[in-house]
Order: sequence, then structure tokens, then C-alpha cells
Amino acid sequence: MAPSGFRIDKLVIIGVGLIGGSFSLALKRAGVVGEVVGVGRNPETLQRAQRLGVIDRSGAIDRTTFADVSMVMIATPVGQMAKVMETVAAVLPQNAIVTDAGSTKQDVVAIARAAFGTEFPRFVPGHPIAGTERSGPEAAFPELYHDRRVVLAPVAETAAGAVTAVRVAWEACGARVTQLTPAQHDTVFAAVSHLPHLLSFALVEAIAAHESGELLFSFAGGGFRDFTRIASSNPEMWRDISVANRTALGAELARYRASLDVIQKLIDAGDAEGLGRIFERAREARERWLRSQG
Amino acid sequence: MAPSGFRIDKLVIIGVGLIGGSFSLALKRAGVVGEVVGVGRNPETLQRAQRLGVIDRSGAIDRTTFADVSMVMIATPVGQMAKVMETVAAVLPQNAIVTDAGSTKQDVVAIARAAFGTEFPRFVPGHPIAGTERSGPEAAFPELYHDRRVVLAPVAETAAGAVTAVRVAWEACGARVTQLTPAQHDTVFAAVSHLPHLLSFALVEAIAAHESGELLFSFAGGGFRDFTRIASSNPEMWRDISVANRTALGAELARYRASLDVIQKLIDAGDAEGLGRIFERAREARERWLRSQG
Repeated sequence: MAPSGFRIDKLVIIGVGLIGGSFSLALKRAGVVGEVVGVGRNPETLQRAQRLGVIDRSGAIDRTTFADVSMVMIATPVGQMAKVMETVAAVLPQNAIVTDAGSTKQDVVAIARAAFGTEFPRFVPGHPIAGTERSGPEAAFPELYHDRRVVLAPVAETAAGAVTAVRVAWEACGARVTQLTPAQHDTVFAAVSHLPHLLSFALVEAIAAHESGELLFSFAGGGFRDFTRIASSNPEMWRDISVANRTALGAELARYRASLDVIQKLIDAGDAEGLGRIFERAREARERWLRSQG
Repeated sequence: MAPSGFRIDKLVIIGVGLIGGSFSLALKRAGVVGEVVGVGRNPETLQRAQRLGVIDRSGAIDRTTFADVSMVMIATPVGQMAKVMETVAAVLPQNAIVTDAGSTKQDVVAIARAAFGTEFPRFVPGHPIAGTERSGPEAAFPELYHDRRVVLAPVAETAAGAVTAVRVAWEACGARVTQLTPAQHDTVFAAVSHLPHLLSFALVEAIAAHESGELLFSFAGGGFRDFTRIASSNPEMWRDISVANRTALGAELARYRASLDVIQKLIDAGDAEGLGRIFERAREARERWLRSQG
């Protein structure tokens, strides 16, 4: 819960979909936000968000909307952030704090540094680890962040007070906040999320492109179904994440390819002992991970 | 169902675990088998199988047990088959049919050809696509093969009458029988089963070996859980399958590595369009597959 006295008098949310809308609803339910103004490219979406009570009114990235704003949440796709941040920087009043909800952080930090210039210390890079397969303001609900993790990725210049304010806001939403450097953040999600998606997409595509593809699919079973579940994810979203996080993802993919090179040699040599050791270590590590998840 | 008149007067099952035991129970329930004799390395397992009614009595690979046998089912791990088949060949009476339930076929065919010599045409290579995470005679149940697929992989020399007898036996168990060549079989399962297992084991091992492994695991979520579910499989079993099917698996792994080489180039170049095309094709192919599964 928020410490007594914490309050966001005026919140501007840019992008009122599942992520931005749920942030608003959670803060409203916690009673720590005054007015919530929604900004977005599509006027109809903003109207729907207002009718649903996700925002109090709609605005634009201009001096009127941003007058006296306390906190700005940028919850647009990462691909739109450069344009959004440049426009925001031109109208941002003194003392307002800016944060984001983008799923990559090194690129967002670079964009923010360029856009905000001397005001960059007021920007707190963030990433809530939550979501559903649904999108838009209709999908937003106040419990989305309950007991979910939020990563904040401040850098040396980031103002400590700004980090605290954003942390307290997320905690008021029921989230568990962790701090990582932007590079740590990007490596972690490249390894445990972006790379598995890439590998899963790649396997399905390889089978579809196989000269016996139809026959292969006809024998695919439960193991294949689990392994490829994430290959049913939104291709545009994963394309954008893969490009936005290409430095860390490229490094993790290269590391994984090197381990497949080793495995190929073991397979070709029929090295049962070497393969068995890898499989055994993997199973043990996964069982340990499952236990740690409770 | 079996055609009227089909009957296995005496069945010998070598390996009375989940696979061999369920074959016996399914044939008994269908009323198409006379006496079922179990053979195995562990006398206690055979006693338990007999007490459970999975087999009628236990025997050994000798002339007494094999006198008048109509069909022999070899349901041992593939690694034991060379020894088992050599011993069986020495005591096999005229007209008995032999089949197996091994999960790879080219290597089993080579082993059988060497062991049975001139009697090789009576061997019908088979692979029931069924199983649970449980093992042993206690795990056996008559419905295991109901509506599951069984692949038979006869070669040019295999006697047509032997193939028919084994097919009818599996159909009496409720299974849907498909015929593939041994090479087709091994490629199919390398691509849709063995390779995904390998990739899943490899990812977990790579994260466990990562210098930030603990941190990485702490942020792994639902997508990671699905992708790595098969990395909790039995390491010894998958080691043996990987080695037994190393020719086909090595080829499928090489093909997959080549597609990762392409993806690495797209990532490093930040080629959103190229990545998007692959992800889009993969999602479409997976959705098509899901629809075809009903």
C-alpha cells in the first residue's frame, strides 16, 4: 500500500489500453490519484475509455493538458515512444515525473535521454510484467498488477525522488517492485522470454517449410503443443520487441546457438554420456526453479 | 475392432511395463488373445504383473516359453533390443510373428535384420504413440491405446501377412494404425518430438549455466514454463532416444540451426520486416495445425 500522504494529483496516461488503463483503475481503486487524463491517437478509443471510467477525460500532448501534471505514464508500444517523448518534452511543466511501461529498457533510456535532455533525470524507466492476451481499454481491470512484478530500471542520472514516487505508485497498484539496470533488464527478458518466443516461432516455421511439413504436423502431439504455445503470440508485437531488444537478444541467441553447436557434435558422435549430462542438469535446474516458484 | 476369427493363441511380451502391459490388457479386453506370457529382467516386476492380471504367467527367452508362440511383442527400451532379439532369434518357432514398440525405427530395423537373418521378414517394426509419465506394470491400463496412433514401419522384405496380423492386433486395442517407412518415421519424430525436447533441455541448461542464472530464473514466467515443460522429461530416456535416432535428429537439428543463423542475421540487422514475416508464417501454420486437430 501507499504511504499515507502519497497522492498523484493529476495523472496523464498516454495510451489507454490494457496496461495504461489498468494502471489508472488500480490507482483509482487505491484512492491515491486525483484527475486522470487520457491521451491517444484514436479519439474513439479515448471516448470508450472515458465511458468505461478508465480515464476522467481525454486530452492531447499540449500545454493545456499538461498544466500542473504530477505524473505522466507512457504506455504506448515502444515503436511510438521517440515521437511521443519529443512532444511531451516540449510541454512538460517543472517537477512532473515521467515513466513508461515498455517491454525493453536500453532503447527506451536512449530515446528518453535524447528527447528530455536536461530533464532526463525526471524520467523513470519501468516495465510491469503483466498482461493478458486481450487489449484495449475494455481489457483494463484494477487487479491486473496485483502481486505481479514491476521492474524499474533507473540510471545514474535518474532522480532518487522520481524513482520513489513511481515505486510507490506501483506498490499502490499491488505490484512487487524490483530494480535492475537497463542492461540487466534486457538480458533477463531476452533470455527467459524473448529467446524462447524466437525459438518457438522458428521451430514452427521450420516444420511448415519442411518438404514433409503436412506429414510432420499430423504426428505432432502434446509436447509440441506446449513448446509452441508461445508461437501463437502476436507476430507484430514480437517483431517490435525483437528489434527493440536486438542487442541483448542477439547476444542471448548467439550464446544459445553456441550451445546447440556443442549438442550437434554430441549427437553426431552418438555421445550418450555427454547428452545425458546436459539433459540431467536441465531437468534438475527446472525442478529447482519450479520449487522456488512455490 | 478385430475381424471375426482373429486370435493370438499365445502372446509373449518382453518388457511388461506401461507399453507392453497395456498391449496385453487391451488385447485381453478385446477377447482376441489366449495365453499371455511375460518376460523381463526383474522377477519381482513379473510377479507384480501376474498378480495384477497384466500377464497370465512369467517365462524366459527359452524354447519352453516360446513353444507354439503366435506373436512376440518386444517392449523393452531400444538400448536392450540387440541382446533381446539375438536371444529370441535362437528360440523362435516357425510362423511366429515378432514386433516391437521402440520409439526409433531405422536402428531397430538394422538390429532386427542382423539378429533374425533369414527370419527377418517375420519382424514388423512398430511404434505406438502413447504413454503417460508413469511406468511399470502398475501403470498399464487397457484404454491406453484407444484412439491413439500406432506407426508400423515395414520394409520391402517384411511379410505382408505379418504386417496385417500386427495391424489387426493394434486395431483390436482401439488404435489407429499408420504406415511409414523407417526413415519417414524417424524424420517425423525427430522434427516434432525429439528436436523440441533437445531445444527445451538446451535452453534450461543455457540459463542454468548463465553467469546471471539465478536472476534470470527469478523472472521466468508462463511462456518459459510452457516452453520448458518437456525439459522435465526423463533424461535417460531422452539420451537413449537422441542417440538411437541420431541420424535423423542430427539432420533436423542442422536444419534448425541453419534457420537460427538466418534469424540471427535478421536480429543483428534489426530487420523488422524479415522477422515479422517468419513470426507471421509460424503463427498461421500453428493455428492451421490446431484447427486440423479439432
